[in-house]
Amino acid sequence: MKPKVSDQPRGCNRAAFLQRNSDPGVLGQGMMLSAGNGVPSFTPRVVLELASDTKEEAITWLLSRIRDTQYNGGTELLVEQLGPGADAQEKENPNMFLVGATWQRLLSGAEDLGLFKEFNDGSMRAFTCANKYNFKDFKGDGDSFLSTAECQYIIKHELDTLRAKDETHVPGLSRVKLYPGKSVIRRLLSKGILIQVFPLHEKEELKRLSFAWYKKVKLSFQPLEDIRHYYGEGQALYFGFLEYFTFALVPMALIGVPYYLFDWEDYDKYVIFASFNLVWCTVILELWKRCSSSLAYRWGTLSRKKAFEEPRPGFHGVLGFNPVTGRQEPLYPNAKRQLRVYLVSLPFVLLCLYLSLYVMMIYFLMEGWALSVHDAEPTFWTGILCFIPSVLYAVVIEIMNLIYRYAAEFLTEWENHRLESSYQNHLVLKVLVFNFFNCFASLFYIAFVMQDMVLLRQSLATLLITSQILNQLMEAFLPYWLQRRRNKKMVRKIHKGKTLEDQELPLANQVRLEADMSTYLGTFDDYLELFLLFGYVSLFSCVYPLAAVLVVLNNITEVYSDAFKMCRVFKRPFSDPAANIGVWQLAFEAMSVIAVVTNCSLIGMSPQVKAYFPDSDMQLILWTVAIEHGLLAFKFILTFLIPDVPKHIQINLSRLEFESREALKKKKILEASEVTKAAQ
Amino acid sequence: MKPKVSDQPRGCNRAAFLQRNSDPGVLGQGMMLSAGNGVPSFTPRVVLELASDTKEEAITWLLSRIRDTQYNGGTELLVEQLGPGADAQEKENPNMFLVGATWQRLLSGAEDLGLFKEFNDGSMRAFTCANKYNFKDFKGDGDSFLSTAECQYIIKHELDTLRAKDETHVPGLSRVKLYPGKSVIRRLLSKGILIQVFPLHEKEELKRLSFAWYKKVKLSFQPLEDIRHYYGEGQALYFGFLEYFTFALVPMALIGVPYYLFDWEDYDKYVIFASFNLVWCTVILELWKRCSSSLAYRWGTLSRKKAFEEPRPGFHGVLGFNPVTGRQEPLYPNAKRQLRVYLVSLPFVLLCLYLSLYVMMIYFLMEGWALSVHDAEPTFWTGILCFIPSVLYAVVIEIMNLIYRYAAEFLTEWENHRLESSYQNHLVLKVLVFNFFNCFASLFYIAFVMQDMVLLRQSLATLLITSQILNQLMEAFLPYWLQRRRNKKMVRKIHKGKTLEDQELPLANQVRLEADMSTYLGTFDDYLELFLLFGYVSLFSCVYPLAAVLVVLNNITEVYSDAFKMCRVFKRPFSDPAANIGVWQLAFEAMSVIAVVTNCSLIGMSPQVKAYFPDSDMQLILWTVAIEHGLLAFKFILTFLIPDVPKHIQINLSRLEFESREALKKKKILEASEVTKAAQ
Repeated sequence: MKPKVSDQPRGCNRAAFLQRNSDPGVLGQGMMLSAGNGVPSFTPRVVLELASDTKEEAITWLLSRIRDTQYNGGTELLVEQLGPGADAQEKENPNMFLVGATWQRLLSGAEDLGLFKEFNDGSMRAFTCANKYNFKDFKGDGDSFLSTAECQYIIKHELDTLRAKDETHVPGLSRVKLYPGKSVIRRLLSKGILIQVFPLHEKEELKRLSFAWYKKVKLSFQPLEDIRHYYGEGQALYFGFLEYFTFALVPMALIGVPYYLFDWEDYDKYVIFASFNLVWCTVILELWKRCSSSLAYRWGTLSRKKAFEEPRPGFHGVLGFNPVTGRQEPLYPNAKRQLRVYLVSLPFVLLCLYLSLYVMMIYFLMEGWALSVHDAEPTFWTGILCFIPSVLYAVVIEIMNLIYRYAAEFLTEWENHRLESSYQNHLVLKVLVFNFFNCFASLFYIAFVMQDMVLLRQSLATLLITSQILNQLMEAFLPYWLQRRRNKKMVRKIHKGKTLEDQELPLANQVRLEADMSTYLGTFDDYLELFLLFGYVSLFSCVYPLAAVLVVLNNITEVYSDAFKMCRVFKRPFSDPAANIGVWQLAFEAMSVIAVVTNCSLIGMSPQVKAYFPDSDMQLILWTVAIEHGLLAFKFILTFLIPDVPKHIQINLSRLEFESREALKKKKILEASEVTKAAQ
Repeated sequence: MKPKVSDQPRGCNRAAFLQRNSDPGVLGQGMMLSAGNGVPSFTPRVVLELASDTKEEAITWLLSRIRDTQYNGGTELLVEQLGPGADAQEKENPNMFLVGATWQRLLSGAEDLGLFKEFNDGSMRAFTCANKYNFKDFKGDGDSFLSTAECQYIIKHELDTLRAKDETHVPGLSRVKLYPGKSVIRRLLSKGILIQVFPLHEKEELKRLSFAWYKKVKLSFQPLEDIRHYYGEGQALYFGFLEYFTFALVPMALIGVPYYLFDWEDYDKYVIFASFNLVWCTVILELWKRCSSSLAYRWGTLSRKKAFEEPRPGFHGVLGFNPVTGRQEPLYPNAKRQLRVYLVSLPFVLLCLYLSLYVMMIYFLMEGWALSVHDAEPTFWTGILCFIPSVLYAVVIEIMNLIYRYAAEFLTEWENHRLESSYQNHLVLKVLVFNFFNCFASLFYIAFVMQDMVLLRQSLATLLITSQILNQLMEAFLPYWLQRRRNKKMVRKIHKGKTLEDQELPLANQVRLEADMSTYLGTFDDYLELFLLFGYVSLFSCVYPLAAVLVVLNNITEVYSDAFKMCRVFKRPFSDPAANIGVWQLAFEAMSVIAVVTNCSLIGMSPQVKAYFPDSDMQLILWTVAIEHGLLAFKFILTFLIPDVPKHIQINLSRLEFESREALKKKKILEASEVTKAAQ
């Protein structure tokens, strides 16, 4: 099947690696020490950090298992211990290991993973070693065919699928039990032996990327291809969505500006704006699906089949046999999990929502009291008093959010989901609902209970602007400042008195520095922020048309701060070959459905509309409800009518499938006719 | 790849066929004449009827193409001309051909189609000839491994994929152009050369099936497996749905009876009934998805990949290259089709709906006038006059339905859809909307404009009962009566004076008799009927709780009349390996959403509820709307929470995929290590 690969003996590219290692841009000047003395003889891609008190026996076993051939159940990866830094301290953890792989191994890993690469004819096909010369960018074995993100992803996957054989426990660590066929790395992670696995930054590439991305302030698209190249598809999709979302809001912002400038308060103009908004929200969400599948097709994740998901590291249960794989693994009855979800988590979430409602009511009471005090006897101090409830409320909400977040993580962990994806979905749902409630409950109260449109507009503006500013500060500048301090300390420690750039740190120090950086926890918070902004724009758009303008401005700075955060603040994350934005698409769509309801009610409640039905409130409400139902129906029909995948990509996908079927059929007929001939 | 198949020379089972043919149950007594004398030397499965004036040259060419080996682009099927009947007439079409196939050919056809059969371990797998002995019911080559429906489906598929090679037109018929790679049979059908292709009934099997199905009146489930065996999955799914639907309505019927018996008119009881109804409708539709996927899994259609759809016979356009297959075929720009759909069909449908509304208004005017005449001076004649508007309206609606149906078919044909499925979807949508409107517009008018609940209940009962009776008559008994007359005539003609059973007709006469039977046009009308019944039950359930009882009774007789119709009235249809009920699932779900809206409004309008809000209509409406929105949200969440495929089937499916991946991986690693060893 793969004669071309095996024609060349394995490891023949060592010269290339040595040369690569001695490249000053990659590993720093003068770092080419002899192998075994702290610096590896291959391009290091991923770092494994074991607990500093891990027994030697366990380490030896793990390394030999990683180095063993695939035929013997190993991974055939290259792994070496990281030497001490230039200024070694006793506190330093000695058990840091660098992992790399030969090109042969990476290519065969890419085939195992079913990575899609561009074929000679421009279509995307699953990479196979037998066919490698037919792929567009494949020039030799040591070329840039695979991006560093892909190499790291392959190595991570290979490490993850390193399975226990007949060992019953980790040698030297009898408490860490192993089950045949289960992932060793996940077991070590869940037992705390393995502290972390992270991919290394590549200084030169990162410098180029950050220059193209955020260092020059200019009007241009983000370098999505480069982002994907360096961080993988999941990240690139987030930034693609951020960019798309910003552009999609521009028409709404443009239409919103004159409302602000000319102080339009006519009901018919608001109706026009709100209707446009509702249709527009539906259209942009549908078009994003098309856009996202175009990107995913171009990046080869659209039709890639997901590998079998392993249980997440924290999953526990009674030992049994997995009905799918037939392997021994802990099982946990689904019914029990459902009970936990519906009898504990759901009531807890509802209780928290009730609590949040309660806090909100207290806030309104306090504000009413402060206002009455101020109105009775207005002084400077009562003026300040008026601000206190808002500030208190904002602080309490922040604290509640934090506590709830921990509680949600704890509960979701306790629900004991087998798969990471199911864990993520449950966590996202919990956090989403609570955040939605916290952000918008007061606005809903003002809009529908107090029915005070002026106050609604004020609160909306205040909330939107303060949350934007706070977010930008909390998200990027605070961690950066902390990181910078740590960084400087390390540089100072090594080159006492000298002022040097980061990139001239020796490899060992660089690795340790990266190991200490904060871990990027995925795109969750970034999407959540966009989701809430979308809520501000869509839910009450007919009251505050300027919201879109503010969000557009925020998004433009968000691009820069997020980019900066990714490049400078966090550890490099493993790439995540996502094909779409997942559960967030659903969340945004749900928001746009709620927006139809709120906007229709707001318009129905406006005094100008009420003036049209002077005699009968009933008529007014019936009309409002009828129009709302019509809009909802229209939304669903629109969603149904716009195909999720653009025509030309559908054609490409069907062509690939057609070709593979035809080839199979032809092969079968040929074989049958040959056998018939031979029999005659 | 397939050594076992080719070990045995092809055609070695002729003895088995001869024996099969001489079996009196299959072909009738004394029918085993020598081959070539009208009766074929193989089991005939499918009949091709060519136009009686087709040139001999074209027939010869077609037969040789069908008989040619697959290697040469033929189908390797067996085909012979049908001889004259026992009482041949000049009017008879001589160009009737019987098609059959060897078992080898059928098995390799099953592999081509990717038919799923039960494996030794109880799971369903795609059949492959190489693996045939590992399938559960496979005992030899001439066994009952494939059902007759499957054999016929395979033969139809093989005939359909008989493609033109380098011929530019059909020999002898220069007007029938051929394009390389396009289906010959479809071309002949669209040009009217081929009149029909239909599968033959199998008298013995049909007798057994009809006995188990409808001949004994008993309380038991339908023989779904036998139905599937004889008619294929599409039919069996329809009958499965009919049965499921009937059972699902039983709880609603049981709850509805006391309302009728005790004349309950309390608002709270109605609210309970309506709420139960709404939740129940959602639940049964969701559970049907699970049920349907269980059936489809058992029948092996759930995970079968659809073959490439060919353009439908009527499709025309400018010659070009298909972007998927690269073959030359007529192309028709999508934009042009969209224009036709949105600028002609859509306005036409809306116009028809308007017309139907107009007719309805005339009906109400006439009825009002008749009532006023009757009230002014009640005599016997004015009493009759009161019925005239209803009768007229019913007749006009029937006529409009008929005309509209033709118009819809014409329009959908004119829209020039490339695929049969897309044609069907557009047709179903058009007919559905109009029928929905015709059936329910008057009820909506009575309910929401006249707000007369007593009249609503009366009209609902009248419409439901009359439509049921009419349907049963029109659908089964009328065609049966016509068929019976034709049948008797033929029997009388042959056995002058003798009274004999149908099955003793000679093969040639039997085939000609079947060719004259009405063609079964698919499950469309059957589903449409169920859809409208579902509407009667769900839309106004809180007004007329007895509707469910009536529908249950109707469905029980419907099972018998549909079964009877399938077995005795219509030509046998080709089996259709459906995995679900397709667009009808969507239609039923849409109906259940509309039901939430109508029921909430009906309850909100009821005087008892109004009495709860004596002061403010507004409060009442706001509450109604809020509850309606809550119910809709609950419905969507429920739909989302109930998984569409039962857990154990999901596990089975993933296990199959896991096994095939593991096998592939193992094969790859083994090969790689062998090559490495050889190199050393």
